[in-house]
Order: sequence, then C-alpha cells, then structure tokens
Amino acid sequence: MISISIIGSGNIAHHLITAIQQSVAYGVDIELVQVYSRNKSSLLNSISSDKIITDFNDFNYADLYIIAVSDGIIAEIATALPFENRFVVHTSGSVPMNALADKNRKGVFYPLQTFSKTKAIDFSNVPICLESETEDDYNLLHQVASLLSQSIYSVSSEQRKGIHVSAVFVSNFVNHLYQIGHDICKQHNLPFAILKPLIQETAQKILYLTPKEAQTGPAKRHDTTTINTHLQFLTETNHKDIYTLLTKSIIDHEQKL
Amino acid sequence: MISISIIGSGNIAHHLITAIQQSVAYGVDIELVQVYSRNKSSLLNSISSDKIITDFNDFNYADLYIIAVSDGIIAEIATALPFENRFVVHTSGSVPMNALADKNRKGVFYPLQTFSKTKAIDFSNVPICLESETEDDYNLLHQVASLLSQSIYSVSSEQRKGIHVSAVFVSNFVNHLYQIGHDICKQHNLPFAILKPLIQETAQKILYLTPKEAQTGPAKRHDTTTINTHLQFLTETNHKDIYTLLTKSIIDHEQKL
Repeated sequence: MISISIIGSGNIAHHLITAIQQSVAYGVDIELVQVYSRNKSSLLNSISSDKIITDFNDFNYADLYIIAVSDGIIAEIATALPFENRFVVHTSGSVPMNALADKNRKGVFYPLQTFSKTKAIDFSNVPICLESETEDDYNLLHQVASLLSQSIYSVSSEQRKGIHVSAVFVSNFVNHLYQIGHDICKQHNLPFAILKPLIQETAQKILYLTPKEAQTGPAKRHDTTTINTHLQFLTETNHKDIYTLLTKSIIDHEQKL
Repeated sequence: MISISIIGSGNIAHHLITAIQQSVAYGVDIELVQVYSRNKSSLLNSISSDKIITDFNDFNYADLYIIAVSDGIIAEIATALPFENRFVVHTSGSVPMNALADKNRKGVFYPLQTFSKTKAIDFSNVPICLESETEDDYNLLHQVASLLSQSIYSVSSEQRKGIHVSAVFVSNFVNHLYQIGHDICKQHNLPFAILKPLIQETAQKILYLTPKEAQTGPAKRHDTTTINTHLQFLTETNHKDIYTLLTKSIIDHEQKL
C-alpha cells in the first residue's frame, strides 16, 4: 500500500485526485490520504470533506507528497512543510528537482498533458516523466505512475526543460495558430468549424508520419506566388510577421536536411 | 445520373477517384467516366485502364469536369480543353474561379483537407467548398458533394482565399511547430512519441472549447520568468525568433479582447 497526499487545488491537482481515486490497483495498492488547499471549498467536488486539510500541521504520514501548485510557489511550499526525511515531489515541467527543500527526499512527477478543469482526461495515455535522487524513490514513483498511465519516462531536470519548451511549441503555440485561423475565418464570415477536420487530420498524421514527411504547403513547395498572395491578403501585422517567419523557418529546415 | 471526368493524377485526384468509386449513391447516381493523366501508369492503382486517357481529344461528354492539378497549371489546362459550354471546375484553395477559361461554365469544388498519398482519408468528414456561376450548376455540384461528404459550404473566391490562408496557419505551420518539438526532443535524447498525446489533446480540445478558452502556457499567464528561461534554453535562431513572436502575438491577442 502506497499512501499519497497532495498539495494544491488547481487543474493538475484535480486531475491527479480524480485519476488516483479512479485507478484500479494492479498488484500494488494506492491510497489518497489527504489533500491540502488554502480553501476547502475548491476541492469539495473532487474528494470527501474529511480528507481535505487547510493547515500544514494537520498532515499525517504519507509515503509520497505531491506538490501540484504554480511553478512560482513550489520552493516556498516545500520549505514550509512541517516534516523531514519524507518523499516530496512536484509536478512541474519547468522547475528543477533541486528547487525542492533539502530537508525531505526530492523527486518529480510530471504528467505531460494540457489540463483544463472543464475537460476530462484519460490519464492512461498521459506520459508521466519521473525523476528522483535514489533508485528506491524512483521505484516508488514508478509504481504510482504505472497505476495511472501506460506511458512512463525517466527524465532528468535538463531533459524536462526540453520537454517543457517543446510542449509550448506543439501545444500553446499550436493553439494560438488555431486562434489565428479562427480570427481569419471570422473576418471573412466563415465558421471556424470548417477548419476542424483539417486540424484533426494534421494532428493524426503525426501518429503515422514524421513531421518532415507530413509537411505540405506553399513554403515546403517554395511556391512564392501563393506566399506573396497570402501576405497581401493578411491584414494584421502579427499575422503577416508569423506567416513570414514560419515560412522562412520551413524553407531553412528543408535546406538543412 | 451525373457523369464526372477528372483531370489529374496527384494527391487530390487520387483521393477524389477513390471517394467517387466508393461512394454509395443516395437518390442520385454518379459515374466516373474518364480520368486524364499525362502518363497512364500513375493512375493504374486507382482506376481501370480503359477509363484512363492521355489525350484531351479522347474526352467523351461528362456533366462535370474536375481539374485536380497544381495551382500553376489550372488556367493552362482549362484553356487547352477541346470542348465548350460544358461545366468545368477546379479543386484549388487559392485559385479564383475566374482563372478558368471563359469557353466553359466555371465552378470550384475545393475539398478542405490535407491529402497524402500514403494515408487514406474518410471523405465523409471533409468540408467541401463550392462555388459556381449559376444556381443550376451549384445544385449539380451540391448533389455530387453530398454523395461524398456531410459537410458542404457555399464559399466565394474571396472567402476561399481566407480559408486557404487559415489552412496554412492551422495545418502547414502547425506541422512545422511539431517539427520544432521533434527537433528539440531529438537534441535532448527524448523520443518524439512523448509529445504525441499532448498534440492529440491540443487538437481535440478545439472541438469543445474556443481557441481562446483552450489557450494555456507561459505567454497566456504573462509568466516572464518561464519565457526567459525558455529563450535562454533554445539554441537555434529560428526557434528563438518563433518563440518570441508567438509569445508577443498571444499577449497582444489577450489585450485586444
């Protein structure tokens, strides 16, 4: 039986609480002991009231404490925990493991996914990136992760930084390109829905083809006529600049290979 | 019974030939009469040999001729067709309807999807954008389109330009961001597979949320600490420039709303 307590009430905390409670233990048992939040009400939809604490001094022993809070306050929370020599991990893609306080054993449990409160996630497909100081602690994290997901990676703090930057490109920036498509459609009285099958297919292609094999479009074809027509058509400076820069980057990438 | 002939042997021609042959006629019948290609061998996997022609003079009558060739040669092909007063359409997102020769009735049949020869497409989900000079011709195009797809739009040449530019953003440029994620992962000895669930989820979120609701990440949070860490971490100039510009565009977009 591995006992777990969670600190936080944001998106990741909520999804973790749900996933742990839904997880069916195969061979190893798992127990959610307590969840800390500054205000109890933010968690009442996710977990029974008696497991919620609002004071660090109410923490019971757990084998694993998962700090699932904003990057900026992870170090402060780790320092404020009123116990020592226990196993404390955070869930951030961008904070090094060593940002955690030295008084406890350190680790990272980083689920690589975009979480919204309003949309359920099938945790079994979420890659979980693990890091710890010792092999024993790694094995414990691996046991917990394998109850939640089929996809587990051992990832150093430096590699995790690479994943986090990559995630900004393939998720946050990609979503902004969806936003631009949305805005151009709106400007021309077209429903954004017209682009959705293309968006889905573009994402699905990448499951079977490399990005290089999947690349199409005027930049890839060096079709300067279409590129210039598009640039003249665009009215917003940011849209023009993004079109120009990404076209250049696609052409540069082709020539590098 | 609507008779159709196709000119071309590229990706769109192949997918159209396959879709027309697979389509089950509901109420209206459809027939693929002939397909023109400069060389017969490029089509032999898609259609029986006796329907392939390599000389424009061998064209029989059809109710609809679909020119599915590269943008740059659509006008030339339309001019070279050895008949008049028939209905001729092209399949391009970026070429105006009026680029077609005046001697025939003009129209556009633009399937909005990314086509690769190596990946099958479920045509029933592909939005088809239609344009014609007369209502009768529009009705004919609509009958054909409705046999292939559930998603049909009436779209002017000007609107189609907007769709085509949007498609470059949400597909070609998005794929290039996948490429950048791929390259950063490779640089740090990480498998690209680790990003695939995030890529799929980012695309699927857009089915339920607006791009604005779905936007997350350091730019959205105005998290300058993370933004600066990422910029210092990136080594390629194009990656740094894209990161800077898309971050600026996300922040500008937030402030506009």
